[in-house]
Amino acid sequence: MRKLFNFSAGPAVLPEAVLTQAAAEMPDWHGTGMSVMEMSHRGKDYMGIQAQAEADLRELLDIPAEYKVLFLAGGATLQFAALPLNLLPEGGSADYIDTGVWSGKAYSEAQRFGTVRLAASSKADNYTHLPARETWQLDPKAAYVHICGNETIGGVEFQQTPDVGNVPLVADASSHILSRPLDVRRYGMIYGGAQKNIGPAGLSLVIIREDLLGRARKTMPSILDYGKQAENDSMINTPPTYSIYLAGLVFQWLKKLGGLAEMARRNEEKARLLYDTLDASSFFRNPVAKADRSWMNVPFTLADEALDAAFLKGAAERGLANLKGHRSVGGMRASIYNAMPLEGVQALVDYLKDFEKTRA
Amino acid sequence: MRKLFNFSAGPAVLPEAVLTQAAAEMPDWHGTGMSVMEMSHRGKDYMGIQAQAEADLRELLDIPAEYKVLFLAGGATLQFAALPLNLLPEGGSADYIDTGVWSGKAYSEAQRFGTVRLAASSKADNYTHLPARETWQLDPKAAYVHICGNETIGGVEFQQTPDVGNVPLVADASSHILSRPLDVRRYGMIYGGAQKNIGPAGLSLVIIREDLLGRARKTMPSILDYGKQAENDSMINTPPTYSIYLAGLVFQWLKKLGGLAEMARRNEEKARLLYDTLDASSFFRNPVAKADRSWMNVPFTLADEALDAAFLKGAAERGLANLKGHRSVGGMRASIYNAMPLEGVQALVDYLKDFEKTRA
Repeated sequence: MRKLFNFSAGPAVLPEAVLTQAAAEMPDWHGTGMSVMEMSHRGKDYMGIQAQAEADLRELLDIPAEYKVLFLAGGATLQFAALPLNLLPEGGSADYIDTGVWSGKAYSEAQRFGTVRLAASSKADNYTHLPARETWQLDPKAAYVHICGNETIGGVEFQQTPDVGNVPLVADASSHILSRPLDVRRYGMIYGGAQKNIGPAGLSLVIIREDLLGRARKTMPSILDYGKQAENDSMINTPPTYSIYLAGLVFQWLKKLGGLAEMARRNEEKARLLYDTLDASSFFRNPVAKADRSWMNVPFTLADEALDAAFLKGAAERGLANLKGHRSVGGMRASIYNAMPLEGVQALVDYLKDFEKTRA
Repeated sequence: MRKLFNFSAGPAVLPEAVLTQAAAEMPDWHGTGMSVMEMSHRGKDYMGIQAQAEADLRELLDIPAEYKVLFLAGGATLQFAALPLNLLPEGGSADYIDTGVWSGKAYSEAQRFGTVRLAASSKADNYTHLPARETWQLDPKAAYVHICGNETIGGVEFQQTPDVGNVPLVADASSHILSRPLDVRRYGMIYGGAQKNIGPAGLSLVIIREDLLGRARKTMPSILDYGKQAENDSMINTPPTYSIYLAGLVFQWLKKLGGLAEMARRNEEKARLLYDTLDASSFFRNPVAKADRSWMNVPFTLADEALDAAFLKGAAERGLANLKGHRSVGGMRASIYNAMPLEGVQALVDYLKDFEKTRA
């Protein structure tokens, strides 16, 4: 058992079983005499590891055959640029839904490459809810509609996939992918950085419908061309092999636990326990509309900001780490990804109650 | 002791001491209760790891203060695009020296973004030597001159830094960085993927003179802007934290061994042993001009191609792994990076002699 619970928003806690296995396999993977990170990416051992990771991910998310899975170097921020470079033709337009910091960053980056429209925003309400679907001003000719499935900083999450008609829906799923089942067929593309629910930072996943490939611009880095990457099994150059191996270990851990239906059950239980505690308190407060609350990232504030430092100090003493909110919003944030056990949330809830009793 | 010697061109052998330390620290780094890959990149533990890695790299390569060091996600192939996007102004021109596959790829990629000139090439001689400096047709107004310091596939290496006057010299040093001292002051920029002499695949280093920053184009992925990355200590977004940590362990290993002067002594000794054996043989052959031979990648052929399979099989039986040449050129290749001990090269040389005796 680990001696602390890590509530970091990302890089984030990983399953202890995965870390233990990775440590044991580090110097000599399966008797090959090599670490995975020393293997040629064109050799059969590593090719097998990557193929297995893809197969397991396809099984977990029930990814249809007509979707390609790419394992790419870098984080979601690089994909904020790669997305329009691949899917937004010169002279075309794309729609973005503004639900917080990360969808805002995706929108800003896309503006470098063409016409992008803000089709809806909840900024006026400080992003405390998702903009109601009926308020979205969608362009039926848009190249795609972009959403951020879960806002890591604001703590709002799409509980259902929005209907956007025939325009391809593109989702940044960085901070909630694999936390529950997702109907991939409803999306043109799903992407995300790995460092929350998948593995180490520096790896991204792209899941994209085949018919959207082959539209990339000429004046862009060729390595960002999804079509070329798909043709080359994500190996135009050396992929981040060790990170893909670790992601594969996480996929196997998820399968062993029972897949995404079971993760949904666990994540809902953890989230409910924490939100119920916050809602029952007159000292702690989560600002997000109940229907739009994230199961992964739970921001909250203390009634008295002057107690923030004491709260964090007491938390650390109980082994509750990294509860400080994002520097842009302050307050607190508990990130409770797949690898955070119920015991961790229970320990946090116990601390919240004790703190309120003695300090409020 | 490891049970085999891995001659892979990259991803490649890493120091056994580094892998042992990384395995031991995997689940709990220095008593923090967290793996390095679970740490917030904005927290003081991880910030300390990255700062130490940069300080050690600066010490090893004697990097002057007016150069920035960037740790970036992705491999050198992404930098092939980032380089012109940062340093080649619209309407400007850059010079490339064509010495083999990798300089050729850098040249092709740069063509996407503007005018690039082939200022010299040894293609007519099948890249068996570097083009003599006096044959280079340099443009004194070029934005930069690009070389590949060591061609991983062809096995040619610049033994000295070429003089290109006042035009900034840019070098892809992926496969020989840290193998010997390098006079950074002679370069405008040095870059490279990590997966040969530095660490795991998916990480690149960029070392760039400050006055070359701030020239990036507007219509490019903002994360590839070296100036912005420099302002943000390589943390515009989450960097590949675990890979940077591993690179830092390799830097400390190098310092402990005596730094780059000592690595040069070792690498020259290994290379000499192998080339002397090939040259003394009438069965094995390295095609590269003696003055331009790489200390890192040694391609060689057998007099009878029909014996290739038997050679590789016999090598594997002796624990000499990954000697097969690159798929584009065939034959054999021994990559003998920093982490390949002299004993490994000695074992290879013994095998070469035995094979020639019994099969030639």
